[in-house]
Amino acid sequence: MSHTPTLKLGRSTATNVIRCLSGIATSEPSQPVVLTPIPGPKSQELKTAMAKVHQNPSVKFFVDYEKSFGNYLVDADGNVILDTFMQISSIPLGYNHPELVALHKDPRFITAAVSRPALGSFPRTDFADLVKNALISIAPKGLTHVQTMMDGTGANENAIKTAFIKYQTNRRGGKPPTTEDLISCMNQELPGTPHLSVLGFHGAFHGRSLAMLSVTRSKAVHKVDIPAFDWPIALFPRYKYPLEKFEEYNRAEDEKALKSVRDLIASRKKENRDVAAIIVEPIQSEGGDFHGSPEFFRELQKIAADNGITFIVDEVQTGGGASGTLWAHEQWDLPTSPDIVTFSKKALIGGYYYKDEWKVNEPYRIYNTWMGEPTKLVTLEKAVEVIKRDNLVQKTKDVGIELRRGLSVLEAIYPRLIFNVRGMGTLTAFDTSDTKTRDKLLDIALARGLQIGGCGDTSIRFRPALIFDEPHLKLTLEILERAIKDL
Amino acid sequence: MSHTPTLKLGRSTATNVIRCLSGIATSEPSQPVVLTPIPGPKSQELKTAMAKVHQNPSVKFFVDYEKSFGNYLVDADGNVILDTFMQISSIPLGYNHPELVALHKDPRFITAAVSRPALGSFPRTDFADLVKNALISIAPKGLTHVQTMMDGTGANENAIKTAFIKYQTNRRGGKPPTTEDLISCMNQELPGTPHLSVLGFHGAFHGRSLAMLSVTRSKAVHKVDIPAFDWPIALFPRYKYPLEKFEEYNRAEDEKALKSVRDLIASRKKENRDVAAIIVEPIQSEGGDFHGSPEFFRELQKIAADNGITFIVDEVQTGGGASGTLWAHEQWDLPTSPDIVTFSKKALIGGYYYKDEWKVNEPYRIYNTWMGEPTKLVTLEKAVEVIKRDNLVQKTKDVGIELRRGLSVLEAIYPRLIFNVRGMGTLTAFDTSDTKTRDKLLDIALARGLQIGGCGDTSIRFRPALIFDEPHLKLTLEILERAIKDL
Repeated sequence: MSHTPTLKLGRSTATNVIRCLSGIATSEPSQPVVLTPIPGPKSQELKTAMAKVHQNPSVKFFVDYEKSFGNYLVDADGNVILDTFMQISSIPLGYNHPELVALHKDPRFITAAVSRPALGSFPRTDFADLVKNALISIAPKGLTHVQTMMDGTGANENAIKTAFIKYQTNRRGGKPPTTEDLISCMNQELPGTPHLSVLGFHGAFHGRSLAMLSVTRSKAVHKVDIPAFDWPIALFPRYKYPLEKFEEYNRAEDEKALKSVRDLIASRKKENRDVAAIIVEPIQSEGGDFHGSPEFFRELQKIAADNGITFIVDEVQTGGGASGTLWAHEQWDLPTSPDIVTFSKKALIGGYYYKDEWKVNEPYRIYNTWMGEPTKLVTLEKAVEVIKRDNLVQKTKDVGIELRRGLSVLEAIYPRLIFNVRGMGTLTAFDTSDTKTRDKLLDIALARGLQIGGCGDTSIRFRPALIFDEPHLKLTLEILERAIKDL
Repeated sequence: MSHTPTLKLGRSTATNVIRCLSGIATSEPSQPVVLTPIPGPKSQELKTAMAKVHQNPSVKFFVDYEKSFGNYLVDADGNVILDTFMQISSIPLGYNHPELVALHKDPRFITAAVSRPALGSFPRTDFADLVKNALISIAPKGLTHVQTMMDGTGANENAIKTAFIKYQTNRRGGKPPTTEDLISCMNQELPGTPHLSVLGFHGAFHGRSLAMLSVTRSKAVHKVDIPAFDWPIALFPRYKYPLEKFEEYNRAEDEKALKSVRDLIASRKKENRDVAAIIVEPIQSEGGDFHGSPEFFRELQKIAADNGITFIVDEVQTGGGASGTLWAHEQWDLPTSPDIVTFSKKALIGGYYYKDEWKVNEPYRIYNTWMGEPTKLVTLEKAVEVIKRDNLVQKTKDVGIELRRGLSVLEAIYPRLIFNVRGMGTLTAFDTSDTKTRDKLLDIALARGLQIGGCGDTSIRFRPALIFDEPHLKLTLEILERAIKDL
């Protein structure tokens, strides 16, 4: 990895590209400016200081968030970096979007932050309105109810709890738990504590709680040393690209994966350990940006429905507009919506949409102290307004097409370094030859002022904000090509 | 339950007791003012509206958080309620504390809210300072490191993950996972996925994720229909009060509980399903405000240490000063600190303190996208300053003594309705004769403008803010006595 500053376009520096108002940046730099190796001396100093109070082994560098703006972050050493990874796909409108910054004067925002409600018991008077404006206004078609939570893991945990409750409620003919259920569950015995399971997929990532790790198969470092539920894991397709060239191969991948799903459901049923939920990502992001075809997901939904299984689509990383549609699953042309769709990251708040029939009727079953936070709804309400007004979902679609077009040009020039270019909207990725080359490419790009994300063993993923536009795309491709040449 | 407004002291009304500045209340009412039944018509209307977009069966009433201040909340119908429950024990300085409200102008607060970092990879330049000021400055003696998380469940999940990693690392003689561990864990097989367990207690509550529900035994409604890990559950003491009168009985309770702990650890070891962690609350709050003696906890810690088991104290509800000390376990006179102490609620952010030897050295093992949120650290930094400056921990100790003194007077007058008065600081509780009476008493008190919390089957718990003072105490006891008379 090169630690020499390699890119210093124009004459601007980190200190003069940023105009600040009351300490917060208000305009976007025109290009990256790299002054030091990354991490620079200041970041390294801060990392040492951090180690004294908080673990830090995964810290890459420290960020001066007051100076960061739009698609650019400014690190502790004043390096201005074009960020196409955006805090692991979680900042919808880029850093310090002025219309979100302005919300700090909104009494709703202030009181929600300082006087934080236990949402399940004492919600704000404006809670239903906030939920409507922030979340229902962008709900996937057919899903009219939402449940807020703190983060993606909490969203997935409660989505599968909802699925378990639904499965048992169906078994009881729609009735609430019996006295026998309530007594036996306190000893974790049947029938109150059922032997149900969740079906996940090889390569999947659904969070890092113990239950979510049980359906996560992206990387060993997440799972090692942690006890797990014995839940079934099916195959997920592994396509070759371009898709049109490998149609037959890819169709066989779908069929193999769907067969494994059917087989696991059947075998679990025989063992009285029924599958109550299928949880699946539209793009296995952490696992390596693996996609499934619309046909695959339509059939998966059908299998779930045929077996009385809740079909949960985990859109924690793919939701919120970056896929070229508000929700990635909207591109599958499903005959009916998924039963549950979970979200977090770009949605700013965790949670899940669910079909009416999945509503849990008894109090305190889906519950915790905070269940999300209204400040996030106040922020999301405004972000949604901006996303709609500025046509940002259409933009991710258009920019994504251009991004893949540019990557395909690079693929044609460097076919051993870049291949399997794929994506939905700006959720775009390509594979490299091996892990070492991938990591080196990421390092060189960063040293040139471009932050991209790795995923899986050999892949590189783009996860820019929704405001990632033509000029950022142009710079991204330029820097990436130079980084490839430097390899 | 009486739905008639019963209390309207003085001539003030909801509209004139509150002075507002830019839409947020800035002074505390002098007493409750009840204008309507609670929930009132406006709350009921809002509940109907909420049902259209979000589940609501546990909602009690809606709160106008802009009008709420100090120890008083104002509900949607303008009722001014003295709140001794404080959003399930989670608001440290009462509603809209002016010094916290003022933080909305702090650029750190604004940027942390709008440009939210992935803390494990790209922390803020001021992160170590914030952690030091907000969390390390109030760390339990002997614990110098902290890990931030989103909430109490996330804190407990990651605390037990840390315990599992520690247990397996010890087994490997301090070394990181082997290649065999890394390969086998992807299939959830030994040795990478160990058969370890966590020991919890009857009556405990540690959260509502699947793993945390597996060590939760407070109420059936939390657990029913949800699959669980088969982890051992020991007895927790059930004392009679006053303690000095039942010394022998209570000591026997300790011994019985400790014996069950020892037996479960031994039997699990025989089955190669070792207990890797013991998780315990200082006060089983949700379960019914059950206490353990300092002797009980000291011996529990010793058993853990003797068996190489991580001793986790869950201070999610008891931490942050309300116990009369910053952390309830500080009153046990332990020879050394617990290995891990988890927190959330009054700490505003979730997380846990841990001993140096519990530090996880490899990156991405204790990790997720957000891992807490710096806005909460900015807020906690100021809250800690206020708590120290205003001697609020000493206040909870003093007020707690007076609260129990007052309750004991009521116990003497109404011995069939109030008994087993107990507490640490303002974390005070008493038992009533039965669930129906308890619930009715809570309802009548609320109808008189006093909010208290229920817990367990027949108990009532106080969980006021740290600014709960003599005048609030006096009103609390007065209204409680009137409510008892109304029973």
